[in-house]
Formats: sequence, C-alpha cells, structure tokens
Amino acid sequence: MQFQGVKGTRDFYPDAMRVRNWIIDVWQRVSLRNGFEEYDSPIFEYLDLFTVKSGEEIASQLFSLTDRGGRSLAIRPEITPALARMVNAKINSLPRPIKWFSVPRLCRAEKPQRGRLRELFQWNVDVIGSDSILADAECIFVAADFLREVGLTGDDVRVRIGSRPLTIAALATAGVPAGRTDATLAVLDKRPKLTEEAFREVASGAGLTGEQIAAVCRFQDAGSVDEIRELLGGREDTEEHLRSQEELTAALDAMGVGDYCELDMRIVRGLAYYTGVVYEVFDRDQSLRAVAGGGRYDNLLEVLGGPKLGATGFGMGDVVLGILLEEKGKLPAGGGRVEYYVIDGEEGDFATVMEVVGALRRAGRSADFSYKRQSIGKQLKAANRCGAAKAAIVRGRTVSVKDLATGEQVDRPLAELLGRPAG
Amino acid sequence: MQFQGVKGTRDFYPDAMRVRNWIIDVWQRVSLRNGFEEYDSPIFEYLDLFTVKSGEEIASQLFSLTDRGGRSLAIRPEITPALARMVNAKINSLPRPIKWFSVPRLCRAEKPQRGRLRELFQWNVDVIGSDSILADAECIFVAADFLREVGLTGDDVRVRIGSRPLTIAALATAGVPAGRTDATLAVLDKRPKLTEEAFREVASGAGLTGEQIAAVCRFQDAGSVDEIRELLGGREDTEEHLRSQEELTAALDAMGVGDYCELDMRIVRGLAYYTGVVYEVFDRDQSLRAVAGGGRYDNLLEVLGGPKLGATGFGMGDVVLGILLEEKGKLPAGGGRVEYYVIDGEEGDFATVMEVVGALRRAGRSADFSYKRQSIGKQLKAANRCGAAKAAIVRGRTVSVKDLATGEQVDRPLAELLGRPAG
Repeated sequence: MQFQGVKGTRDFYPDAMRVRNWIIDVWQRVSLRNGFEEYDSPIFEYLDLFTVKSGEEIASQLFSLTDRGGRSLAIRPEITPALARMVNAKINSLPRPIKWFSVPRLCRAEKPQRGRLRELFQWNVDVIGSDSILADAECIFVAADFLREVGLTGDDVRVRIGSRPLTIAALATAGVPAGRTDATLAVLDKRPKLTEEAFREVASGAGLTGEQIAAVCRFQDAGSVDEIRELLGGREDTEEHLRSQEELTAALDAMGVGDYCELDMRIVRGLAYYTGVVYEVFDRDQSLRAVAGGGRYDNLLEVLGGPKLGATGFGMGDVVLGILLEEKGKLPAGGGRVEYYVIDGEEGDFATVMEVVGALRRAGRSADFSYKRQSIGKQLKAANRCGAAKAAIVRGRTVSVKDLATGEQVDRPLAELLGRPAG
Repeated sequence: MQFQGVKGTRDFYPDAMRVRNWIIDVWQRVSLRNGFEEYDSPIFEYLDLFTVKSGEEIASQLFSLTDRGGRSLAIRPEITPALARMVNAKINSLPRPIKWFSVPRLCRAEKPQRGRLRELFQWNVDVIGSDSILADAECIFVAADFLREVGLTGDDVRVRIGSRPLTIAALATAGVPAGRTDATLAVLDKRPKLTEEAFREVASGAGLTGEQIAAVCRFQDAGSVDEIRELLGGREDTEEHLRSQEELTAALDAMGVGDYCELDMRIVRGLAYYTGVVYEVFDRDQSLRAVAGGGRYDNLLEVLGGPKLGATGFGMGDVVLGILLEEKGKLPAGGGRVEYYVIDGEEGDFATVMEVVGALRRAGRSADFSYKRQSIGKQLKAANRCGAAKAAIVRGRTVSVKDLATGEQVDRPLAELLGRPAG
C-alpha cells in the first residue's frame, strides 16, 4: 500500500525546509525592525467568520469540516478575519495603533497551478486603529524593506498602488449605477489577466456601455495623480483621496523606497472588504502572479462585531515569492549541518566519542557521530556527507581535529576541545 | 454579530506568541546542534494514512474533511505517518541514518482539558534507518538536552524508559495469551492514571487473572534490569532486549544525561505502532500529563508501503511543556520591541523623522514612530508603551538620543546616527 500527499500540498524535505525557514526568518526580522509584533490564530475557525465579509472569491475556496457538535468549521484561507476577531475581543486593552504581523499557514481548495497551491504560508502585516495614510505607507514600506532585504531591486519588482475610492468615483463619473459597483470592481480586477478584447466582452456582459468601458480604462491607465484629478473632473468627494495618494507617494519617497513603488489604478484587488488604498507587488515583467497584495479595510472590524476602526495591511505568500527568488538566484545556498563529526580512532575509544559528543552539544556546539563502529575512512565519508566542518578523531585522551575543507589537522588534548582546563 | 474562536484552540496574542516562538526556537537550536535536519509535511493528508496503523487512540481524534473530488482527508493529529510516507517516497536517495526533526501544528478532536487542547505544536525528533540502540539513546539525549537548555533539571523532570518487547515477554511469562497482548498493553498504558483497585478491575475486565495481574505489576514495578531479568526467568528471547536496555543506560550516562533518566516498565505508550524501547517525560511529582513520549517503531515504514527499516523518535507538545515551564518560572521575560522611537522635535521635522526611520530600518536597525503629529511628551509616552530602548528626537539635522531606561540624553548630528560620515 503506497501513500501519497494530497495534490497541491508540499512535502518539505530538509532542502526545501531550509528555504522556507530562510524566507520566514527574513519576514520576521523585517517585521520586528519595523516595530510590528507577531500574533497567530488557530488553523481553523467557525465557518461564518470567513463567509461574512470576504466575498465569493474566498468562500469558494474553503476547506470546511464539522466538529463533534455538528458545527461547521473551516481551515483558514486567510488570516485577516481572525485578526479582526482577535482585535475585537481585546479592543479596550490594546494600545493603538496595533501593529501586528503573522506568518500563517493557509489552505485554499483551489485547482493547483503554477504559483497557486492548496497550502501556503503567507506573511501578513497589518496596522489597526489608524486612519492615517502613514499607516498605509508603513505597510508598503515593510513590503519594500523585505524585497530589498532579499536582494530584489525596484528593477525586479514593483509595488503597484491603486485606490478603491478613486476607482469607485471613476465608475460614478462614467455613469455606472451605484448598484453595479461591486460587480464592476470584480470585472476590473480581472482586466490585467485578460486581452483588451476579452475584457471588453466581460465588461459589457456586466452591463457597461462601450463609452463607460473606455472611460474606465482611461482612468485605470492614468499615469499620475494630476491626470486622475483631471479625469474625475474635480468631484468634491475625491480630492481627499487624491491628496492621500500624493501624501502616500511623498512618505514612501521620504522613507527611501520610492524606487519600488508606482501609481497604478488597474490594481483593484479581489476581496470585497477593501475600502481605500490597494496595492499588489509584481515581478517587473509580470510573468508571475502577484507576489503580495493588500490595502485598507476600514469596515471589517465593525462587520465582525467590533467598533469602526481604521485598518490596513497586506499579505505575501511563499509560493510565488519562492518561484521569483529562485528565478532571480536569490535563494541562499545550503549550508553544512554540524561543526564536529566525532570519530573513534581506535577500538575502545567509542565511550569517549559519546562523552565528547554529549559535552559539545551540552555546551551549545553542534556535533554528530556514527551509530556504527566502522573504519575511520568510512566515518570521514559520513562526516563529509552530512556537511560537517571538522572531524574530531578521538584516540585515548587526545583528539585530532581535521578541517574537512582544507584537510589541515591538529592534535589537541581532549580537555582543551571540551573547553575545560587541561590537566 | 460577535465571533469567537473554537473551544480548545488558542489565540496567540503577541505575549503568548513570544513564548511560543521562544520554545520553538530552542527546539530548533537543540535539534540542529544534535545533527538533525528539519522537515515538514502538509497540514492535511488522505485520511487512511492516519487510520492504517496508529490505532484507535488517534483515529478517534481526527478532524476529517472532504476534498472537491469527494476523497476523505484529515488534519494531521500526529506527524509520524507523514514522516514515514515522505521517507518511503525517497527511500533510495536519502543517506541513512535519516536524522530529522519537525515542529508540526497538530489538531485533535478531543475534549479540551488541562494540558490537552485541540490544536498544539509538537516537536518531533526521529532517526530512521538504524536498528542501533544508540539511535534510541540519541533521541532521548536530545529530549534531555532540551530540558537542560530551558533550565529544567533532573529534579524537575524525568525521562521514564520502558520496553515494549520486555513488557510483551512479561505478559507471555505471566501466561497471558498472545491474542490478548494488544488489548492488555492498552490496559497497562492506563495503569498510571488509575488507582490500584480501578486498575485491577479494568485488567480483569480484559481477561487477566488475579495472579497474572500481580505478576505483571511486579514486572512493571521492577527497579533494575537485573530484577527484570530474574522476573522473566531467563527467557532466551529477552536477553537481547535486556542488554539493549543496559547499553541504553550506559550511553545516556556517557553522554552526560543519566541524571534525567530512569528505568520504568510502567511506561507502555498508547500508540499501536511501537516495537522497542518506549519512554515518556514527566514532571517529577507527576502532577501533569506527559511532557513528551516516544520510542522505537520498526514496522511503520513497511506498513505504509516502504521497506522494513528501523525507526525511533519522540514527540513533545507545547501545551503541557508550557504549563510546566510557567510553574517552574522558566519562561523568558518579555522584551522591548524596538531600539529607536523617532520623534519630531519641532514643526517641519516630520519629513526628517520618516527619513531617519526608513534609513535605520533599511540598515537593519529597529525603529518606530508616531503616525500622529503630537507633542514630544505624548510621543515619549508612546515610545515607553512600545518598550523602545531609546527615543531619537529630531530637530533639523540634529538628533537628541535619550536612553529611556536611564534618562540620559546626548545630542548627535543626524548623519552620525545614520552611520554616514558627518559633513
């Protein structure tokens, strides 16, 4: 009977695990230096937490299960609703702004394809309790700070920044009825994946006239805030959002990541809960899916039973990122496993090998040894196989320390290796 | 509409997350220095992987779900079957012995109670591909090395070591029919949780005579290998296992963790797949459930479609361990979040704050700032609230760096703080 893993999931053998750990370590390090604290939610929640506000895209991708009491649960497909639940539960004792990050394992019941798996790790960075555009700027800075840290430049990746309220204003200006806004946003979110013609077809299917489609495309393709301002024809209610967009750019420039960022009103985002600035990170030539995406979601806490509270953040999955880092040659090289491989040089020395291995490890040094009593040559081979830096060949109370890279060998008293005074 | 987490799961707010990360960091560090490599499996697998060989205890605790194709899946309640599956899939390319560890998130649909939750993190340390008792010794050493590392002594915790084959031999010697062995082992596994009288009742319910019960108890309560040897009356087939037990003790002594370990034939383990040495780690006065448990399982790979290959290892969950570390005062104190909290000293300095924060972070230093333009006093309060070590108050191109612990303050040119040559 042979068993296999479920399609769309990954087995992390040690080499793959080292890469995963390296990515997660950088995510954590960058988050912490940006003043964010780590949290995590359970892997499953009551189903309705995810279906209430995230919209169709997520709801159709849930792995659901039933507990012993017959209640419906789901494995988390995203962490944001759980974040909102957790913040709501302690809303009166948490100092604001709440700057939190997480690296949840998420599951989505979708068809596996390049860049999309059924199980992924997703870095989430959120600021809750601030309406300031600086909170949005901070999140985008964190994303860019990470990209720079792993060696990706503004020539490799771009943070493309759009705006839900400006897009909605553009729809209104074009004469799209308010009742059709959500459906139209979903259509616009698909535009970058469609040909011009296919998009026109989908858009008219959603009820847009040819003129409306043209107007909306002009808005989406605008290259500057001033151009957008002109297209929106000085609508009173948009000036605040236009100014936010300008402040955002200024803040990102001041913080030194302007070279990663660009205005791009084609970015709409699929999730229903966004209310402000939205953005996605893409590889420069857009051969891959989005590396990250996020934006402002000021209503989510309220919808989930809490106060109305400004919130903004992004998620970055490990799947597309991993492909990109591999393509760009930015993944770390595999390293050796241990410092010392300890070998019995003569019969009767094995008890000493055990003593040395135990002492080294207890002192915080890494050490390994062979379970089999075999020739020094075979043990040296095993030492090389596990990438040990040095072999320590024990003979009585003397140890020959051999550097396995250079071949250099030095004899030392055992007590010296163990860091105890000789004698 | 208020939402709650599922009973028996945990929300990891930042303080709890720091503790969880600290425990996992030590698990990883100790594993690596003992020459183990990290792996991980998916959070869910096809259901039958878990039901084939783990026995009733696990099967009754599964969270199962169904994929779109109608196939039964389960969230992993343990990682060992997935480990066996992964090793089997690459059996010809993995150098042996395979020394791997993992820190899986596991879910068990059991009734939540003290020390038992529906979701936990469990350190798993396994050696596959060796029949040597040294592999068992190594795993036990790793467990003890961790316990010592977090400040627990042999007076706080004990690794209690039993033996499946010796226990089975004792049952045979007592005249328990071979067909009743598995059921009797399950009864013996419960003995430590029962009163003497309750145990007698359960045991006779399982078909043991009073004489058999007495004989088995004498065996379980034996204090030394010699005593066991005598009780087993020189059965030819047990001498090998008795000698293994002696070698194990000698190896643990040689490696310097003998003071954590003791022989205890009352340890049987609940899982069906164990075949050799078995052990559990308990707090000294046994007020808590087992902190860890493991043993040898030489048949599991074969049952899961691979070759017959020696395997041994243990699991240590974070729930009971967390309670124990808290009781013993061994959990780390919470630390500050950032090095610098950067403040605008005068109107017009905020752009410089952004510049300083961005530059510090990009240089790998941790820094935070306020989204609101408010008085220096309020910003200093915010700096203290987030545990910053220093406040950096920007005035033009000068910055006053204030140590928030001592109150000491030094004025420095901005360029110096940013590590660029002044001028």
